Amino acid sequence: MRIAVVAPSCTLRREAADGVAAIVARRGDCELFIHPQCFLSDGHFAGADEARLAALREVMADPAVDAVWFARGGYGSNRIAEAALVDVPQAAAGKVYLGYSDAGFLQAGFHKAGLSVAWGPMPQDMLRGGGEAAIERALDWLVLRDPAALEPALDGPAMAFNLTVLSNLLGTPLEPDFTGVDLLIEDVGEHLYRIDRTMFHVTASPAIQNVRRLRLGRIADILPNDPDFAMDESAIVEQWCARSGIAFGGRADIGHDARNRIVPFPAENR
Amino acid sequence: MRIAVVAPSCTLRREAADGVAAIVARRGDCELFIHPQCFLSDGHFAGADEARLAALREVMADPAVDAVWFARGGYGSNRIAEAALVDVPQAAAGKVYLGYSDAGFLQAGFHKAGLSVAWGPMPQDMLRGGGEAAIERALDWLVLRDPAALEPALDGPAMAFNLTVLSNLLGTPLEPDFTGVDLLIEDVGEHLYRIDRTMFHVTASPAIQNVRRLRLGRIADILPNDPDFAMDESAIVEQWCARSGIAFGGRADIGHDARNRIVPFPAENR
Repeated sequence: MRIAVVAPSCTLRREAADGVAAIVARRGDCELFIHPQCFLSDGHFAGADEARLAALREVMADPAVDAVWFARGGYGSNRIAEAALVDVPQAAAGKVYLGYSDAGFLQAGFHKAGLSVAWGPMPQDMLRGGGEAAIERALDWLVLRDPAALEPALDGPAMAFNLTVLSNLLGTPLEPDFTGVDLLIEDVGEHLYRIDRTMFHVTASPAIQNVRRLRLGRIADILPNDPDFAMDESAIVEQWCARSGIAFGGRADIGHDARNRIVPFPAENR
Repeated sequence: MRIAVVAPSCTLRREAADGVAAIVARRGDCELFIHPQCFLSDGHFAGADEARLAALREVMADPAVDAVWFARGGYGSNRIAEAALVDVPQAAAGKVYLGYSDAGFLQAGFHKAGLSVAWGPMPQDMLRGGGEAAIERALDWLVLRDPAALEPALDGPAMAFNLTVLSNLLGTPLEPDFTGVDLLIEDVGEHLYRIDRTMFHVTASPAIQNVRRLRLGRIADILPNDPDFAMDESAIVEQWCARSGIAFGGRADIGHDARNRIVPFPAENR
């Protein structure tokens, strides 16, 4: 199992890369290729659009690569997602693409294009408290397909997205077919009024109204609302589900933290 | 000319209301009715959804009211916009609806429903530095249709929206027809990476790609980007226009400030 790490959004920290490499060496059950593009820096991004796209296309096209592991989120994968999917190289279909957060723009488009996608921890998570367990969980799933790494309540086709990323890909060419899936959402660093506004936007989408159920992961690092919002994130999400006729499926074990679990996207249409 | 003020989003400050009332008294060319709902408070909002909706529906249905002036933005008008448009009272069509920012959710839906809408200063702007001029400008337009109050480069059908509000109404039942209009956008209190992400979302919309041109108002109070974003708001907007094939029409004289001008929405379809 050869795993390639590229950074379509922001720059990977060296100490995260070193930590992940040490875990892989200790395990001895896979090879890790951390593309040098991961350490580029160009303004907000891990290199210019062209550099991030070239690294991504390179590992997509490499038949020796079994899994592409997105280094971290931040922001920027949307800027190269459509270009990444022009004339998809044949070798791109034989591998899985793992990540979360901003990587959701790529994962939406890649799933729509028939590629194999999963939500789960990324190399930069090494730097979180307890991050080593997140890295081990991602590798247990990538290498061994260990079911213990999966979100524990999955019982059918599912997708997972950062709520704000999801809102920003609706109506774009990256929007996948949500019909019949359990849609797991989470978010980080937002005000509750923004969570409410984004839930309005997302649940008003006819495409989203085709989901089987919506499940709520963790909403982390909520920014202070002035005045107090008077509803918590569960009440907000349940209210918008009720208003839009979407079934609420309870909480989900995903989030911007070391406990974040794996959610493979459905493979039915491949 | 009788002008009714209601607050579909957040609570109006008493001192803003008093200041506007004093200006109206001094002018003597119009009557002002500040609905008591403007001063309600329920968590984030100027009263519960039901109270805000009832006040809005009341002034919409009142044939003695010539203009409905949204008290201020903040957040919350999206929560009542669809309900406000159920069985539109006949008297609702004979008046204009003025406001901006979060009021854009209502203005989008109201324009789509054939009502007369304009972007422009709101009573709470009284509290800004130079706010008295903003209030006078709004009244000059409401009472006298003074062309000096208009955004100076309007030369055809136009609409104006807060960029983040616009992004959050795309794909919802509130989305109006943008075909052939100059679309003026502005924003406040966002990071540049969010402006970039929202421009991706908005310019990828086939509905938005039908505009004649996109024009950029002021992006105010930009939050620090870490690392520096390396592009300013003009470069961001021009880049997404170029990528999406939307003509960029230059800067526009609108924003979250006392200089904000009036942009009447097109009346062709009424």
